[in-house]
Amino acid sequence: MGYPLLEQHFRDLGHLQHVTSIMYWDEAVVMPSGAGAARAEAMATLQVLMHRYLTDPRLAEWFAAAAAQGESLSDFQRANLSEIERQVRRAQAIPADLVARAARATMACNQGWRTMRAENDWSGFSPLLTEVLAIKREQAAVLGEALGLSGYDALMDEFEPGARAHRVDAIFAQLRSFLPALTERILEHQRGRPSPIPLRGPFPLEEQRRLGKHLIEMIGFDPEHGRVDTSHHPFCGGVPTDVRITTRYDEADFSSALMGLLHEAGHAKYEQGLPRQWLGQPVGAARGMSIHESQSLLQEMQIARGRDFLEFAAPIIADAFPAAAAGSSQAFTAENLHRLYTRVERGLIRVDADEVTYPSHVLLRYGLERALIDGKMEVCDIPEAWDAGMQELLGIRTEFNYRDGCMQDVHWSEGAFGYFPTYTLGALSAAQIFAAARRELPELSTDIRGGRYGRLNSFLRERIWKQASLLSVDELMVRATGEALNPEHFRHHLHSRYLQELG
Amino acid sequence: MGYPLLEQHFRDLGHLQHVTSIMYWDEAVVMPSGAGAARAEAMATLQVLMHRYLTDPRLAEWFAAAAAQGESLSDFQRANLSEIERQVRRAQAIPADLVARAARATMACNQGWRTMRAENDWSGFSPLLTEVLAIKREQAAVLGEALGLSGYDALMDEFEPGARAHRVDAIFAQLRSFLPALTERILEHQRGRPSPIPLRGPFPLEEQRRLGKHLIEMIGFDPEHGRVDTSHHPFCGGVPTDVRITTRYDEADFSSALMGLLHEAGHAKYEQGLPRQWLGQPVGAARGMSIHESQSLLQEMQIARGRDFLEFAAPIIADAFPAAAAGSSQAFTAENLHRLYTRVERGLIRVDADEVTYPSHVLLRYGLERALIDGKMEVCDIPEAWDAGMQELLGIRTEFNYRDGCMQDVHWSEGAFGYFPTYTLGALSAAQIFAAARRELPELSTDIRGGRYGRLNSFLRERIWKQASLLSVDELMVRATGEALNPEHFRHHLHSRYLQELG
Repeated sequence: MGYPLLEQHFRDLGHLQHVTSIMYWDEAVVMPSGAGAARAEAMATLQVLMHRYLTDPRLAEWFAAAAAQGESLSDFQRANLSEIERQVRRAQAIPADLVARAARATMACNQGWRTMRAENDWSGFSPLLTEVLAIKREQAAVLGEALGLSGYDALMDEFEPGARAHRVDAIFAQLRSFLPALTERILEHQRGRPSPIPLRGPFPLEEQRRLGKHLIEMIGFDPEHGRVDTSHHPFCGGVPTDVRITTRYDEADFSSALMGLLHEAGHAKYEQGLPRQWLGQPVGAARGMSIHESQSLLQEMQIARGRDFLEFAAPIIADAFPAAAAGSSQAFTAENLHRLYTRVERGLIRVDADEVTYPSHVLLRYGLERALIDGKMEVCDIPEAWDAGMQELLGIRTEFNYRDGCMQDVHWSEGAFGYFPTYTLGALSAAQIFAAARRELPELSTDIRGGRYGRLNSFLRERIWKQASLLSVDELMVRATGEALNPEHFRHHLHSRYLQELG
Repeated sequence: MGYPLLEQHFRDLGHLQHVTSIMYWDEAVVMPSGAGAARAEAMATLQVLMHRYLTDPRLAEWFAAAAAQGESLSDFQRANLSEIERQVRRAQAIPADLVARAARATMACNQGWRTMRAENDWSGFSPLLTEVLAIKREQAAVLGEALGLSGYDALMDEFEPGARAHRVDAIFAQLRSFLPALTERILEHQRGRPSPIPLRGPFPLEEQRRLGKHLIEMIGFDPEHGRVDTSHHPFCGGVPTDVRITTRYDEADFSSALMGLLHEAGHAKYEQGLPRQWLGQPVGAARGMSIHESQSLLQEMQIARGRDFLEFAAPIIADAFPAAAAGSSQAFTAENLHRLYTRVERGLIRVDADEVTYPSHVLLRYGLERALIDGKMEVCDIPEAWDAGMQELLGIRTEFNYRDGCMQDVHWSEGAFGYFPTYTLGALSAAQIFAAARRELPELSTDIRGGRYGRLNSFLRERIWKQASLLSVDELMVRATGEALNPEHFRHHLHSRYLQELG
């Protein structure tokens, strides 16, 4: 009877995680400014309570009984058991008071970040981040010890199960071997082609919202199990029956919000496509953040910035903004939108970066956060190291512009050290999965030009979404695409899109 | 060391209640339609968990140790201890599985109500309500047994500590002794006076929102610790640091949303004015629902529908809707608004009722819910009894219009049997508290005509808000007004406002 007791226990824990996810959304999207301190206390209690579930003294007995049942369990149940063990192992390594301190420190830092970033207030922000870093180092030490991993690997493993820095290093080294030269070639090539015509607004927010809703529902976002809102930092949260995505709007530019929404809708479709019968159990969750990011980048980068999608979407976009389109109909052609949406430019902001320069932003953060966790660097060293890294990787300087420099991301404030590499692993995975979809669905290009996503979504549902956490990331990639993660697909994609050659 | 351990334990429980309140708001205001079932499960787990806190086996030992500390505790601590004991006594009477069943049944009924009310679908709704009633009868039985009360008293005591049906009966009998004849006189008087000029829209929602926000902030609603949203059934929820009020808007009529907002803002000011140092402890909560309702009705009925407020607000309202006001400037005078907002008319809908006919709506529900809990009536009998009660009390029939009849309120769906009487107790208390404020603040009328609420809010803060749950309802009323609840103040108020005589 061990396994059913575990399932019941983790169903209850899943309910607390459900509540936590919605409360996280609430804090980021609707909570009034004066409510932060009391909210942080409440959330810390919830974290401690969940930790108590994961360290319940009865677990050992249930595990022993479940092990004896091994033979009679289904594949999903066995995978669930090993996901449960994984979570328990991690939780048991961390003392309850450290959980509470982490919850409070990250909530305070996160809330501070929202106002201090806007004010470029590094000196106000850095003590909050220092507190978070101290706690993450403590966590890294005890987790690493318990799991037999380096501290950084132990943190990364939370977001990307099985990921190890030496493998990430190898993949990133492969990227570094071709990306700088390729970027130069792409920029050179771009200089020889016509510049895109800028889109001139204003683009009323209500019309932007309507257009975004129309397009994400077309690609498969289910509004009965999700919603779209506005927040400082776009994200996808909530739970699979209630996926909350956000974006931020700018009246002068609809493209960033729209591409952001299509990106988050890719995340949302994955969540909404997870198998209902496993909802709330550990095995029923998405398989790590690189696969998650592959689903969002597949929608945004592989599809929505591609020519097929834009052939379909250009007239819809023009219809959405009749005043702007009437002023400059040439700006709203598929050709011009494609030129705009595949424009490559070295810039300060990661979330605004094109897919060619994006990996450099990740390399910078990956290097810094490893050094921070390893104790080779302190918070006060970040601004200078950031500036130096930006110069080296992207040839631009940030200097005292913290707002668009080392304060631009919310991740470290939230304690999410070890998360950044998954963005680029996700970009590589997206290219590889989309290449597999193209091979298997000969009509894919025509489908996208016609606004039809049924076949693609079936492919993704079957290969990725329905698998939830049944397989490891490597196994999932092999099953979905025929091989483990291979950066060559990304290289091919860049060659084909930006140089119009096979690469 | 017993008392500090109790405080710590209840602080954690308070955090779970915090989360529950915000999640309740989420469900009513933003949750997508398909998320209900999974949400109900998560909330049921949270209810069970909170019940587990209240039935923790260590409590007995902590209580014993705290009792030994009695002498050294402050007044607030002693009151906190007795509020804790009250909650624990109630919780211990109810088995955990009944808590879970109640949470699921009320969530399902509440979610069903939202769509079925709109569809006038009594036959779809009544099985859901039957399930809720069965569970409430079970609760009433075990609670009554444990507390030595009748089942109905045991339920009512949750919302209104110390309330007993025999006292409510006596107060309601006093009301019944003058209200029918007084209502007739008021209607007769009204017939002899000019009819109000109707306000003709449209009143754009954005302008309504702006006006509402302006006026509630003027009377003291703190937007840094609260928000305003839209929901099917207006309510005030959240927590004192984050009070969530809602209303519903109609483009053809701004008055209902505006008066609703001022009403909810009265609730919100009470929550926001509770003493910060006791937040999250049982003694730090508002003192029952009749006092809560007195604070909302004081703002809406005593102030906002009164001549002083409308002298100040009329030009602001006219400015808010320039197109409508230009069309009929006579409609937007203080005199006409006052006539409109004090119009007496027997109608079907409780929340739209004027203060003269409102108590009849409560008497109807109070009679029915007692009979339902006492087992003298079943859910299938409600429509006929409702129709008969409406005829008797208000002289109008509902027949098969369930939507505007017995399905109009959310309360029973939520399991809130024993709540309705507090509306009328609140109306009586509001009249009494406002009469005391008038006596003590000679400038009150001038203040309200000038949009100044500092003195009134100080009076309320001192007498009501800061007291939280330190005193019983009776003690609080005596301290605030010089006497226990006395319906004469309400009678005076009606005479003075509706017949321009001292009564």
